[in-house]
Amino acid sequence: MTDEPLPSWTDGAARDAILEFVASVTEGPDAVPVEQRVAVFDNDGTLWTEKPMPTQLHYIVQQWRAAAEADPSLAEHQPYRAAVSGDLGWLGAAIDKHYDGDESDVSTVIDAIARLTDGMSVEQYASSVAEFYRTAKHLTLQRAYRSAIYVPMVELMRFLEEHGFTCYIVSGGDRDFMRPMTEDYYGIPPERVIGSALGLRYDEDGAQVRYTAEFDFLDDGDEKPIRIWSRIGRRPLLAAGNSNGDVPMLDFIRRGAVGLALLVHHDDDTGRGDAPYDQGAQKALAAASDRGFTVVSVKRDWSTVFVEA
Amino acid sequence: MTDEPLPSWTDGAARDAILEFVASVTEGPDAVPVEQRVAVFDNDGTLWTEKPMPTQLHYIVQQWRAAAEADPSLAEHQPYRAAVSGDLGWLGAAIDKHYDGDESDVSTVIDAIARLTDGMSVEQYASSVAEFYRTAKHLTLQRAYRSAIYVPMVELMRFLEEHGFTCYIVSGGDRDFMRPMTEDYYGIPPERVIGSALGLRYDEDGAQVRYTAEFDFLDDGDEKPIRIWSRIGRRPLLAAGNSNGDVPMLDFIRRGAVGLALLVHHDDDTGRGDAPYDQGAQKALAAASDRGFTVVSVKRDWSTVFVEA
Repeated sequence: MTDEPLPSWTDGAARDAILEFVASVTEGPDAVPVEQRVAVFDNDGTLWTEKPMPTQLHYIVQQWRAAAEADPSLAEHQPYRAAVSGDLGWLGAAIDKHYDGDESDVSTVIDAIARLTDGMSVEQYASSVAEFYRTAKHLTLQRAYRSAIYVPMVELMRFLEEHGFTCYIVSGGDRDFMRPMTEDYYGIPPERVIGSALGLRYDEDGAQVRYTAEFDFLDDGDEKPIRIWSRIGRRPLLAAGNSNGDVPMLDFIRRGAVGLALLVHHDDDTGRGDAPYDQGAQKALAAASDRGFTVVSVKRDWSTVFVEA
Repeated sequence: MTDEPLPSWTDGAARDAILEFVASVTEGPDAVPVEQRVAVFDNDGTLWTEKPMPTQLHYIVQQWRAAAEADPSLAEHQPYRAAVSGDLGWLGAAIDKHYDGDESDVSTVIDAIARLTDGMSVEQYASSVAEFYRTAKHLTLQRAYRSAIYVPMVELMRFLEEHGFTCYIVSGGDRDFMRPMTEDYYGIPPERVIGSALGLRYDEDGAQVRYTAEFDFLDDGDEKPIRIWSRIGRRPLLAAGNSNGDVPMLDFIRRGAVGLALLVHHDDDTGRGDAPYDQGAQKALAAASDRGFTVVSVKRDWSTVFVEA
C-alpha cells in the first residue's frame, strides 16, 4: 500500500493525531473553508537540522572569516576570532546562554551579523546566500544542506496541501537567509517565509531595497504569533515547532477554535543522523501535556529522517 | 465583442500600455515565470475613492464620536471635538498639512487612532470594522463603500490573474482595517494585504494577539518598497498608485528588469462620481514623464468608474 499517507511516519499516536485532525477540519459539515486552512512550521530543528549549529550560523561564520581575511584587525575581536580560529566554542556558549535567557554575547553576534549586510541590496544578499547553499556541506553529516531536511515534515506539508492547506514557515532564523532555498527544499515560496528581519531602507537613486546596520526583530517566542498575524491575518489551524521559542505559537494555534500543535522531540539515538538533544526545548517538552501539544518523537514516530544523501 | 479584455477601459494609450506589457511578460521566449508575476496596488484613490476623506477616517470619526459620547470630557480636545461637532474642517486641514509635509496635527490624529484599539484583540477589531462596512455609506456618493470601488481597477486585477499574476494591495491605510473587506470587494485575501500597522503584543493568558497603544509604521513613500520586500520577497512587475506617496513604489517597479508603473490621475470632471483633484499627487504627476510612469486618466481612460449602486 504505497498510497498510504505519510509513509515516512511510523504508525502511532502522532501520525494518528495528524490524520484525525486533518479529517476533522476537511471532511463533513464542520469542514473549515479552504482559505482558512493555514499551517505554520518552525524551520531550525523542525524542518531541518539545527545541530551542531543552525545553518545560518555556518554561513555567517564563513562570511566573518572572509571579512577577517580582508581586514586582519577584525580577528582580534569576537566573534571574528572564533570564526578565524575555527574554534566555535565561544559561539556555542553564546547560543547556550541565549537559550538560558542571557543575551549578552548574542547581542555581539547580532551586531556582527548586521554589519555583514549593512548597505547590501536584498538581491545581492540573496545571491550570496544562494552561493552558500550551492557549495556548503553540513558540518557533521557531510552532505549538502539540501539533504539535511526532515523527510517526514516535508511529507506532512505536501499532505496538508493535498487537503487544501497553505503552509508557511515561521522561523527565528533570518527571513532572507531562508528565502533562497525554501521553494527548492520545501516547496514554500518566498512570500510564505516569515522570519527574523534586518532593518531595511529604500535607496531611491539605485531603486534598491538595502539592509541597514540595525536588527529589526527576532521572530521568536511571543513574536511568532504577532508576525503570523501581521503576515497572514488569520489564526492557523496547525503549527509545528521544536523548542521553547515555539511555545507561544503552538499555544496560539492550539487554543483557536480548532488547532493541532506538534512538538518535534529530538530523542533519536538510533544513529540515523542527528544526535538526541533536549537543549532549548526542555520548557516546551515539560509543558506539552498541560498545553495539549502532540509530541512527535523522532525516534519512534519517524521511520525515515533524511533522504539518501 | 464582449470578450474584449478590460471592457471598462477606453481604447487608448493607457489600455494599450497594459495590454502590451502583459503580453510582453507572459508570451514568447522571454515570458517571466508565473511565480514572479506579482502586481501591487495602492488602495485609497487607486482601488476606491479617497474623497471627501479616506474610508478609514470615516470609521475612525464614528469611533471617536462614540468614545466622546461615553466620556464627554474627551470632546474638549481634538480630534474628538471635530468628530462630535461633525465639523471635520480640522481633520481635513490636518491631512492637507500631511500632504504638504507637516505632520504636527497628524501625530495627534495617529495617537487618538492608536488609543481606539489599545488592548483590543485583532479579532475584535476585525468584527468592529466588518460592522462598519455592513452599515456605513460613502459621505458624498451616498452608497455603500462596496459600491465606491473602481470597476476598471478590479477588472485589471482579474485580467492580470488570468495571465498568471498574483495581486497584492500595498496601501498607506491600516492593514487590519482593509482586511475585513478586501476578499469581498477586490478578491484579495488578507495575507495579500500590506498596509500601515499598529503595534501588536501577544497576550499569553488569552492566547490572543492584541494592539498596543503604539503606532508601528506608516506604509507610505519609501516604506512601500521596503514592505513589499518584507512581505513578498520579490520585486513586482506592475504597480498602480495615485499619489506622491506611491512614487518610490512605482519607481522601484518601473526600474526592475521589466516593469509597468500606472499612475491614476483623478481628472474626472464628467460628473461620474469623484470630483477631479490633484491634491497629494502633484509631485507624482509632474515626475510621471521623466520616470516613465503611465498616467491613467479617469476622464479619458475609464468608460465606467463605479458599479451601479
